[in-house]
Amino acid sequence: MKTAAYAALTAKASLAPYTIDRREPGPHEISIDILYCGVCHSDLHQVCDEWGGAIFPMVPGHEIVGKVAKIGAGVSKYNVGDSVGVGCFVDSCRECEQCKMGEEQYCEQGMTPTYNGYEHGTQVPTYGGYSTRITVHEDYVLRIPESIPLDRAAPLLCAGITTYSPLRHYGLKAGDRLGVVGLGGLGHMAVKFSRALSAEVTVLSTSEAKREAAMQLGAHAFTVVRDKAAFKALSKRFDFIIDTVSAPHDYNLYLSLLRTDGTMVLLGIPERPAPVAAGALIMQRRKLGGSLIGGIRETQEMLDFCAEHGIASDIELIDAGYINDAYERMLKGDVHYRFVIDIATLKKAG
Amino acid sequence: MKTAAYAALTAKASLAPYTIDRREPGPHEISIDILYCGVCHSDLHQVCDEWGGAIFPMVPGHEIVGKVAKIGAGVSKYNVGDSVGVGCFVDSCRECEQCKMGEEQYCEQGMTPTYNGYEHGTQVPTYGGYSTRITVHEDYVLRIPESIPLDRAAPLLCAGITTYSPLRHYGLKAGDRLGVVGLGGLGHMAVKFSRALSAEVTVLSTSEAKREAAMQLGAHAFTVVRDKAAFKALSKRFDFIIDTVSAPHDYNLYLSLLRTDGTMVLLGIPERPAPVAAGALIMQRRKLGGSLIGGIRETQEMLDFCAEHGIASDIELIDAGYINDAYERMLKGDVHYRFVIDIATLKKAG
Repeated sequence: MKTAAYAALTAKASLAPYTIDRREPGPHEISIDILYCGVCHSDLHQVCDEWGGAIFPMVPGHEIVGKVAKIGAGVSKYNVGDSVGVGCFVDSCRECEQCKMGEEQYCEQGMTPTYNGYEHGTQVPTYGGYSTRITVHEDYVLRIPESIPLDRAAPLLCAGITTYSPLRHYGLKAGDRLGVVGLGGLGHMAVKFSRALSAEVTVLSTSEAKREAAMQLGAHAFTVVRDKAAFKALSKRFDFIIDTVSAPHDYNLYLSLLRTDGTMVLLGIPERPAPVAAGALIMQRRKLGGSLIGGIRETQEMLDFCAEHGIASDIELIDAGYINDAYERMLKGDVHYRFVIDIATLKKAG
Repeated sequence: MKTAAYAALTAKASLAPYTIDRREPGPHEISIDILYCGVCHSDLHQVCDEWGGAIFPMVPGHEIVGKVAKIGAGVSKYNVGDSVGVGCFVDSCRECEQCKMGEEQYCEQGMTPTYNGYEHGTQVPTYGGYSTRITVHEDYVLRIPESIPLDRAAPLLCAGITTYSPLRHYGLKAGDRLGVVGLGGLGHMAVKFSRALSAEVTVLSTSEAKREAAMQLGAHAFTVVRDKAAFKALSKRFDFIIDTVSAPHDYNLYLSLLRTDGTMVLLGIPERPAPVAAGALIMQRRKLGGSLIGGIRETQEMLDFCAEHGIASDIELIDAGYINDAYERMLKGDVHYRFVIDIATLKKAG
C-alpha cells in the first residue's frame, strides 16, 4: 500500500515528503490509519544519527495514534474503527523470559523498534508514524480509551509510559515525596502521574521560568537548582527522584536529596558517563536505577490509568510541513510539552 | 579504669602502646574485657586521616570480641562472663526513624563510631578495640554464639555484617547468580554467606593468584577481570554483584554483567567518583546501590546465621606488637583474609 510519509533521506537532512510501502495486514496484523504522531526528542537524535547505526531513508515517529482500517483474518483483539496506538516497538522475540513476562522492551534478542530498525529476523527496515498508515501485529497494538482525546494520547505511547513505568516498578506510593528533574515531555507526565498516585511532587529545574507551569501542572513545589539555599533545604527529602534530563548534569547533587533507601531513576542518556560518588550511595543506602519505556501490558495499564484519572499530554498540534521548524524549537527547549503532528495535513501534502 | 591500648598519636604515625581511661559501666552499660580485635582496612585509612577530620590520639579497632567483665545495675541482656562483640558504632540517637527501625547505622544524627568519634552529644572521644577493655551500652552489644571461635568471630562485626546486610536487603535468594568483585576481608565473607544462601557465586578478581583460594572458600566459579573473553562470556549473567573494591575501577564494566533488573551494590569508596553510563542502567533496568554495615538487630541475626551455618572469618592471628607490620602487609594486599589482634599480647605489653 503506497503510503505518504515524511522522511530524512540522509543523516541530519531536513525531513521532506516521501512515499513508503506498507504491507497488507497478515493474519494477525492490523492496518492502522494514523491520525496523530508525537514528536519525541529521540526522533531528532536518530535523524541526526547521534546514536550511530541509523538507517536511511528514515521515517521517524513512535507515538502513534489512529483508527483500525483493516484487520487480518485471525485478529481477535481489534475491530475496524477502533482507536488504537503504537509505541516504541512493533515486535520482539516473544520467547525469552522478558517477553514472556510482558517486558518486551527488555527482549533478550532486542525489541523491533517502530522505526530505525528492521522487522524481526529480516533486513526489511521499519518506518515510523510520520506517515499515513502502519501495519502492526495485534499483540503490539494498544487500545486508546474513549475518554482520552486522540491527539493528546499520542505522547502517552512514549513519554507517558517512560515515566509511568518507573513510578510503578520502583513503587511510588501515596504520600511519598518525589523529585522530578527537568520539566519537558517526560517531566510533565511524571508530575501528572505522581499527582494521580497521591505523591508529593517537587519539580527541580534549571529554569525559574518554568515555576508557574510546574505549579499549574500540579506540582506541590518547585525549586530552581542553582538556588543553593533552596536546594540544600531539600537535602535527604525525597523517596524517589525521576531524572528526565539528557544534558550533562551532576548526579551526586541530586542523590544528596534522597533520604535513606531512596531511589533515583535515570530516564535520559547524557552523551558521556557521569561521575557517581560511591559514598553518596553507601552512606544512605541509596539506589541509582534506570528504566526503559514499558511493556505492552503495562502501556495498556497506563492508558487505562490515564482514562481513569483524566490524564493526557499537554501538546502543540502541528502540520506535517512544520516538522523541521518543530525540531529547531525542540533544540531550544521551546515546546509545551510535546509537538504532535496532525497526520491529516500529511495526507493533503502527499 | 586505666586501660592498655595501641594508639596513633598523630596522623600517619606508627601505632605504639598508650594508656586510655575507660569509664565504669553506667546503669545500662557493660564493661567488656577485650580478647580479640580485627584489623579493618578502614583503620588504616583513619590512622592516616585519609577521610579528613581524624581525632588523635586514635585507638583504632571496631571488630571487637571479648567477655563481659562488669555490668551496670540496670543491665538485663548480658551477664558477667558472656561472650560479646562490639562493631562499628557504640551509640546513636535512638529516636529517629532509622534508629527506631533498627537501622542505627543510618541514624539521622549520625551514629557514634566505636573510635575516631565522640560519645553521643559530647566532646569525649571514643576509643576502639586495640585496647584491653571497653564500656558500651548494652543495646549496642552483640552476643557471640558459642559455636563460633572468638578470634574468628571478630571480623564478623564489620566485614561480616557489611556483606551480609546487602545480600539480605537487596534480596539474594537460592539459585540467584552473584558476582563478588574483590576477594579480601569483605569478599571472602560474601562468598561464604552467598554459598550458605544457596546462591551461585562467581569471584571476579584482578589476580589469577586468587583462583584456588576462591574455590576453596566455596565459590562456584572464578574469573580474572583482564581475561576479556571469559569476562565477556559473563555478560548479563548475574542477578547481583557485590563490589568490595575501594581502588578506582570501571563500574560500567561490571554493570554489563548484570541481567535485566539486576543490582550491583557498592561497599568500597574509591577516592574519586567514577563514571556511570546511564544507558548501562536504563537499557536493562539495572540498579546501582550501596550499603553501610548493618544495624544491631541485623548484626545479631548475622551472628546467629554464622553459628547455624558454621561460618566464621578466615584470619591471621597476630600479636599487638605486630600491628604496624600488619598495616604494611594490608597495603600490599597480603592478608588472608583478616588480621586479628590477640589482645592478651597487648595486656602483656602494657
